Amino acid sequence: MDNQNPTWQNLAAEKRESVLNSIPGKWKITGRIPSVQEQPDVTGPFIQQFLSPREIEITETDAVGIVANTSTGQWSAVEVTEAFCHRASLAHQLTNCLHETFFDAALADAKLLDEHFATFKTSVGPLHGLPVSLKDQFHIKGVDTTMGYVGWIDTFQGNKDDRRKRTFESELVRELRASGAVLYCKTSVPHTLMSGETSNNIIGFTYNPKNRNLTAGGSSGGEGALIGLRGSPAGFGSDIGGSIRIPAAYNGLYGLRPSAGRIPYEGTANSMDGQSSMVSVLGPLATTAWSARLLFKSVLSQEPWLHDPLVVELPWRQSQEDEVRSLISSSSPLCFGMLVNDGVVKPHPPVLRALDLVRAVLEKASHKIIEWKPPPHSQGVTLVQRHWHLDGGADIHKDFALSGEPMIPHVYAAYGPAPTTEASASEVAALHRELRAYKKEYLDYWLSTTEQTGTGRPVDAFLMPAAPYGAARKGKSVYAGYTMILNGLDYTAITIPVTNIDAKIDRVDDEYKPISDKDKIVHEDYDPKIYDGAHVAVQLVGRRFHEEKILALAEYIGELLHQ
Amino acid sequence: MDNQNPTWQNLAAEKRESVLNSIPGKWKITGRIPSVQEQPDVTGPFIQQFLSPREIEITETDAVGIVANTSTGQWSAVEVTEAFCHRASLAHQLTNCLHETFFDAALADAKLLDEHFATFKTSVGPLHGLPVSLKDQFHIKGVDTTMGYVGWIDTFQGNKDDRRKRTFESELVRELRASGAVLYCKTSVPHTLMSGETSNNIIGFTYNPKNRNLTAGGSSGGEGALIGLRGSPAGFGSDIGGSIRIPAAYNGLYGLRPSAGRIPYEGTANSMDGQSSMVSVLGPLATTAWSARLLFKSVLSQEPWLHDPLVVELPWRQSQEDEVRSLISSSSPLCFGMLVNDGVVKPHPPVLRALDLVRAVLEKASHKIIEWKPPPHSQGVTLVQRHWHLDGGADIHKDFALSGEPMIPHVYAAYGPAPTTEASASEVAALHRELRAYKKEYLDYWLSTTEQTGTGRPVDAFLMPAAPYGAARKGKSVYAGYTMILNGLDYTAITIPVTNIDAKIDRVDDEYKPISDKDKIVHEDYDPKIYDGAHVAVQLVGRRFHEEKILALAEYIGELLHQ
Repeated sequence: MDNQNPTWQNLAAEKRESVLNSIPGKWKITGRIPSVQEQPDVTGPFIQQFLSPREIEITETDAVGIVANTSTGQWSAVEVTEAFCHRASLAHQLTNCLHETFFDAALADAKLLDEHFATFKTSVGPLHGLPVSLKDQFHIKGVDTTMGYVGWIDTFQGNKDDRRKRTFESELVRELRASGAVLYCKTSVPHTLMSGETSNNIIGFTYNPKNRNLTAGGSSGGEGALIGLRGSPAGFGSDIGGSIRIPAAYNGLYGLRPSAGRIPYEGTANSMDGQSSMVSVLGPLATTAWSARLLFKSVLSQEPWLHDPLVVELPWRQSQEDEVRSLISSSSPLCFGMLVNDGVVKPHPPVLRALDLVRAVLEKASHKIIEWKPPPHSQGVTLVQRHWHLDGGADIHKDFALSGEPMIPHVYAAYGPAPTTEASASEVAALHRELRAYKKEYLDYWLSTTEQTGTGRPVDAFLMPAAPYGAARKGKSVYAGYTMILNGLDYTAITIPVTNIDAKIDRVDDEYKPISDKDKIVHEDYDPKIYDGAHVAVQLVGRRFHEEKILALAEYIGELLHQ
Repeated sequence: MDNQNPTWQNLAAEKRESVLNSIPGKWKITGRIPSVQEQPDVTGPFIQQFLSPREIEITETDAVGIVANTSTGQWSAVEVTEAFCHRASLAHQLTNCLHETFFDAALADAKLLDEHFATFKTSVGPLHGLPVSLKDQFHIKGVDTTMGYVGWIDTFQGNKDDRRKRTFESELVRELRASGAVLYCKTSVPHTLMSGETSNNIIGFTYNPKNRNLTAGGSSGGEGALIGLRGSPAGFGSDIGGSIRIPAAYNGLYGLRPSAGRIPYEGTANSMDGQSSMVSVLGPLATTAWSARLLFKSVLSQEPWLHDPLVVELPWRQSQEDEVRSLISSSSPLCFGMLVNDGVVKPHPPVLRALDLVRAVLEKASHKIIEWKPPPHSQGVTLVQRHWHLDGGADIHKDFALSGEPMIPHVYAAYGPAPTTEASASEVAALHRELRAYKKEYLDYWLSTTEQTGTGRPVDAFLMPAAPYGAARKGKSVYAGYTMILNGLDYTAITIPVTNIDAKIDRVDDEYKPISDKDKIVHEDYDPKIYDGAHVAVQLVGRRFHEEKILALAEYIGELLHQ
């Protein structure tokens, strides 16, 4: 394009085309893609029609299973990588889930891994030959990081002249490569990252592959859709209010939000970078809990605290996992809290059913469930939200101004037409005091459950909805309080896929009288016909830095549910 | 006082009198106390003249030794407590180091501990019967917390009507009591806590007991003077720029600044509370490294992460200590960095000599010292200082306005006559980004030393001055950059007492040409005659959360120095 001052529309279109054009011709879907109405679900048999049986076998194996094959020479990294490049290409054509592909570089990396194995008969690291997808916040040499902003195309975080453009790599990227992972694509996000659905002016809207009437969630929505379609076995997203867990839940995945300071954020693009009061954290999304564990543990094995000054020196604590597993294997009862309704927005009937299913399998296995009655979540959620607006939207508006592009409605609703007054340092400090007091009250409540559990311990973890819906319709991801609250508390949280919406079972609750406007919107939005088939997940929550424990419990609960 | 609107002077005088009056008549010094010129040093033989041999024996035993006696029934907690109450009373009369005493409550607590031991033949906890002094930021039932502010007298943090007044206790206080410690006094601070010397309008100026020409340091200056005089075996202070390490160094003590989030700050009064960008941390001061370790480890044994949401769940890691001790006992060489001059203010000759002494004993023990050449400290120190002024002094001015009292000169120099413009949230975030980049650069430097150490590891720790002087003269604590830099990095740091200034050895360096105004002030301030006898310490520094390692290394270096 020779235009000296291209419009944002032209720039966005050009980028959109370049992503599509990066897909090899052999992987383009040539026939007509059925409409949403004709084919809401493009997972399973639908996407499989474009793949060979061998490709299906590889791409429907979880990350743990893939590494078991690639690190023993059973499968070549090249074959595995190619299968995922193919499936990811299909996934993008079906859902708009990719921002960047770099398949040639990935295949070259995979070849080196295979050569290493052929020569030394050992793997390079714990992720040897595993394709890993990354949200488009991670810098990777050779490609853009746009984070969905038109103004970031062909720049380094909006700066055209920054020499790090297309050369710099984020710390986590370095660690994944050192672990033997193969990086091959970056996935879509809503510009700003501050949205529970994924849409931007470059690639458009990311659909939920299980039910294209619905969104893939956000902000790690591309990860959700891609892994949901098995175009990636596992990947990394980020979460400041649910951005890992919402898309994980909407796509039937395990998505872990670790506590802040466990996984290195160093050198990763972000919104409101430097806002340290309520930080975004990175974490894995995967098809099994054990795969999320593999990614998480692999990163820790790289000693990230030696490379990111904000990471706490906490190596993988096998003892924490062993403690849980020993309780389970000795049939000692565990006790879980369960929060069904946060008192702000009542979950849809299928979400309530999912919680009941979890309750049933746990009780059947002789574990105890107690009602979770913490300090009001409404209060905590409001505190979290205030953190996102401390700068009055200044940082976000700056990035829109680079190109003049408009905001998607979700973002506009939150950040409006222009920046508002910034908080002063005193106001920031006052907010910190309020949040600290809330956290203290919550922690005291947690500890107080010792009296009810019968185990001599406080609850081992608690269960709650991941969202008030299985997945939301476009424009209807209106309430993220079920995930946000845990960012406020900095607790470890993981989504556990439980079931799928069944229009025949999950009827509308006609008796329910909504208690607020938001509650009414969510309640009235439920329509079994439209939501049929969508995934439903719950969240499992542990205290700060209890990742090892929560991953083990999530795996266990997953087994109970699906055995 | 019946005056309805007493002046700040009256309120301060009344409080000052009440502290003096809380000292039992039998412990009042009746004769004339010699002037500073007549008797600069009031430690050792001078204070011993007022004590019985038994009291001297008890109070000159370190915390580890005391607990060994009190927890085995050798010494009664009551006898130990009474000895320290007596010696603390003398210390206050000699140096103005106390804000509050509660000897009766302490003796009653000690009696209960003795009764417990008599009944069960076991100790209550790892600090059974150990008197522990606390900086006047900790809330303890029955007494004020003034933090040196006249406006805080008879209030809860400035609020007359707060029901927590004289009833609430800080989380660390609860944990110390649960560990069996006996609390008996609170020690002096400069109002605001933002000063390297200790002075306020209530108790006046806290003298350095080893050389009353000099200050006790600050802001935990009362702790420094009291423990320096053995009126307490160990205590807790706080540190946002050196406030533990400066008074520890000035008084010949081990003072540990742990990384933020290790020790519970919950429920402790503070300046600029809620400023979370550069937080104050609590830590122990003691006469031996092993005693500092005892206090630190005892607090962790109380699982503070269950009671303070900001504490990281990091129990005492014996393995970290064992690793160091095993290297030492197997005569494996260690490697230390050594920074002699930070390029801003050159240390006085006795400080340079202290570093040489440490170098000599380490090299004699076959350890290696390499020159420490990190990113410029001047840059890091400036970043730290900016954090202290984010609110333009608003919080501090508010507390002075409560009574109308004036600032001490040190505080006035920093915070001026009125609040200045506050930073905006965007400016706060920009500062966070700058500091993060500095930390990253420093961490990369640390790691890069692997190439020079010869151990296969980066340096095990590094050594540097604690201050450019052994202790400063009144009004001359002008440069805290040697401690502040480590707050910016959030590194673990401990002071190690090395030697005392000797006017005959530590001559003025007439050749030195100062490189800046501050450097000139410090250089010209050195006068061997005035400084004679003062303590000189160095700092030993480890990375974040390396407390176990640094305590073990400090103990080892202390042994090498004093064997």
